[in-house]
Amino acid sequence: MATYLITGSSRGLGLALASIFASKPDVSKVFAAARSQSDGIKTLIANSNGKVEFVQLDVTSQESAKKAAAQVEQSLAGKGLDVLINNAGCMPYTPDGIETMNDLDETFKINVTSVHYVTAAFLPLLKKGSLKKVANISTTLGSISKATTYSVFPVPAYKVSKTALNMLTVQYSLSFAKEGFTFVAVSPGWVQTDLGGPSADLTIEQGSNAVSDIVLRVTKEDTGKFFNIHVPGWEHAEGLNQYAGENVPW
Amino acid sequence: MATYLITGSSRGLGLALASIFASKPDVSKVFAAARSQSDGIKTLIANSNGKVEFVQLDVTSQESAKKAAAQVEQSLAGKGLDVLINNAGCMPYTPDGIETMNDLDETFKINVTSVHYVTAAFLPLLKKGSLKKVANISTTLGSISKATTYSVFPVPAYKVSKTALNMLTVQYSLSFAKEGFTFVAVSPGWVQTDLGGPSADLTIEQGSNAVSDIVLRVTKEDTGKFFNIHVPGWEHAEGLNQYAGENVPW
Ligand SMILES: NC(=O)c1ccc[n+]([C@@H]2O[C@H](COP(=O)([O-])OP(=O)(O)OC[C@H]3O[C@@H](n4cnc5c(N)ncnc54)[C@H](OP(=O)(O)O)[C@@H]3O)[C@@H](O)[C@H]2O)c1
Ligand SMILES: NC(=O)c1ccc[n+]([C@@H]2O[C@H](COP(=O)([O-])OP(=O)(O)OC[C@H]3O[C@@H](n4cnc5c(N)ncnc54)[C@H](OP(=O)(O)O)[C@@H]3O)[C@@H](O)[C@H]2O)c1
Repeated sequence: MATYLITGSSRGLGLALASIFASKPDVSKVFAAARSQSDGIKTLIANSNGKVEFVQLDVTSQESAKKAAAQVEQSLAGKGLDVLINNAGCMPYTPDGIETMNDLDETFKINVTSVHYVTAAFLPLLKKGSLKKVANISTTLGSISKATTYSVFPVPAYKVSKTALNMLTVQYSLSFAKEGFTFVAVSPGWVQTDLGGPSADLTIEQGSNAVSDIVLRVTKEDTGKFFNIHVPGWEHAEGLNQYAGENVPW
Repeated sequence: MATYLITGSSRGLGLALASIFASKPDVSKVFAAARSQSDGIKTLIANSNGKVEFVQLDVTSQESAKKAAAQVEQSLAGKGLDVLINNAGCMPYTPDGIETMNDLDETFKINVTSVHYVTAAFLPLLKKGSLKKVANISTTLGSISKATTYSVFPVPAYKVSKTALNMLTVQYSLSFAKEGFTFVAVSPGWVQTDLGGPSADLTIEQGSNAVSDIVLRVTKEDTGKFFNIHVPGWEHAEGLNQYAGENVPW
C-alpha cells in the first residue's frame, strides 16, 4: 500500500494528481499539500474515506517544509513516504523583452529552491518508503536544446528556472542512485490550468493521467531522466507540442 | 578600435582577461569592473597608458549595474561598448550531501541574476557597439549531459546555477539574434585561481588566453552556443577534462 505527497495540490495538475492517486486501490494515503485548503481539496478529502489528508505547506519556506514533514511523519506512524511529487510552480510573463525581466530570483525560489527544501525535508521519510520515487514537474520549455522551438513564449524566468530544476533533479538522482531512489523530471504537456490558460492543448484530465502514468511506470533504471508525457493521438501532432512519451533532450 | 568590459576583474581569470585585451593594439579601452579596486587592477591601470579604467560594480545589485553603465557611457562619450564578459562568479561547497545545501538562492543570485542585471544595464551601450558580443563564463560542470562525469565535485549549487546561466545565455541569444548580437557561454577549463584551487589543470595564463581566443573568434553565427576552450596538448587528455574547443552538450 503506497503513500504519496503532492505539492501545489490546491488546484490544476496537483489537485487532479491527488485525486487520481487517491482513487487507486493500492494507495493507502495521499497527502495533498498546499498553502491553504482550497475548495477542491476539501471536496477531495470529503469523498476520500480518510485516504486524503491536507498538509499546510508553503514550499518557499524551509521551516514550512520541515513542519509539513513532521506532520506527515506523525500521520504515517512509523511507515515511510513512497512517492513525492514536486508540482507547485509559477510562470510569470515578461512581455516587454528579456532585458525587462524583474522576477528571476523570485521564480527560481518558487520553482527550484522550493523543490530542494521539500525534497530535503521529506528525504528521511522517503528513505523509509519502499518506492523511493521523486517526480519533479518540469516542462519542455526548460529544455535548452528546444529553446528555439519555444522562443515565442515570453516566459524567460520560467524557462531558466525549469532548466535549473532539471539539473537539480539530476544532482539528486546522482546522489541517491545507490540507495535505490528514482528522481525524474516530467513535462506534463500544455494543460488547461490557471497556469496553462484555456487555449492549452490538453484537459487537466489528459495531462494529469499522462503524468500519473509516468510516475507509476518509472523505476530506478530511469533515475535522472526527463520524460515527456504520452497522450495517444498526440505523438506526431503538428505545431509546437508532441506528446510521445519520449525522453526530452536537455 | 574595440572596447571591452569584464566583470569580476579583481583577480583570477577576470584580471587576466582585462590584461590580455588591454595589450591588443586594436583595443582602445578596457573597463575592469569589480567590487573594489584590487592591487592587481591598480597595477594593470598604472601600466596601461590610460587604456584601462576601473568601474565599481557589485554585480548582484541592479542599482550598481546601472551606475556602472552610466560611468562607462560617460567615458565612451558617444561610442558603444563592443564586448561584455560576464566573468564574476562564486563556487560554494556542499561537503555533507546535496540535502544540506543552504546557498542555492544566493549562488543563483551571484552567478545568474547578476549576469542578467549587468547585461540588461549595458544593453543600450552594446547596441551602439560594432561587435555586439557577450560572453558568459560558464563551466562544463553546468552541463546536464555531463553531470555523471562531474558527480565527484560536491558543488551542487554551482552546477545548478551554471546550467541556469546557460539557459539565460540562450534566451538572450534568441532575443537579440536579429540585431546581430553574439551571446555565448564559455567554459574556461579548470584553472588555478582562488576558485579553481592550486591543483587545477591550467595556469591562469593558459585559461585566460584560451577564453580570449574564443571571445575574439566567435561571430553571430555562433550565438547561443556553449564553447569549451581549446588548449593545445589537452585535446585528448586523460581524466575528467579535455580542452578541444568543442561545443559542450547542454
Ligand atoms: N499547465 C501547463 O500547461 C504546464 C505546462 C508545463 C509545466 N507545468 C507545471 O505543472 C505544475 C503545476 O502547474 P498547474 O498548471 O497545475 O498550475 P496552477 O493551476 O497555477 O497551480 C499551481 C499550483 O502551485 C502552487 N503554488 C504556487 N506557488 C506556491 C507557493 N509559493 N507555495 C506553495 N504552492 C504554490 C499553487 O498553490 P496556491 O493555491 O497556494 O497558489 C497551485 O496549487 C507547475 O510546476 C507548472 O510549472 C504546467
Ligand atoms: N577557476 C576555474 O577552474 C573555473 C572553472 C570553470 C568556470 N570558472 C568561472 O570563471 C569565472 C571567474 O572565476 P575565477 O576562477 O577567476 O575565480 P576567482 O579568482 O575567485 O575570481 C572571482 C571573481 O568574481 C568576483 N565576484 C564574486 N562575487 C562577486 C560579487 N558579488 N560582485 C562582484 N564580483 C564578484 C570576484 O570579485 P571580488 O574580488 O569582488 O570578490 C572575483 O573578481 C567564474 O564565473 C567561475 O565560475 C572558473
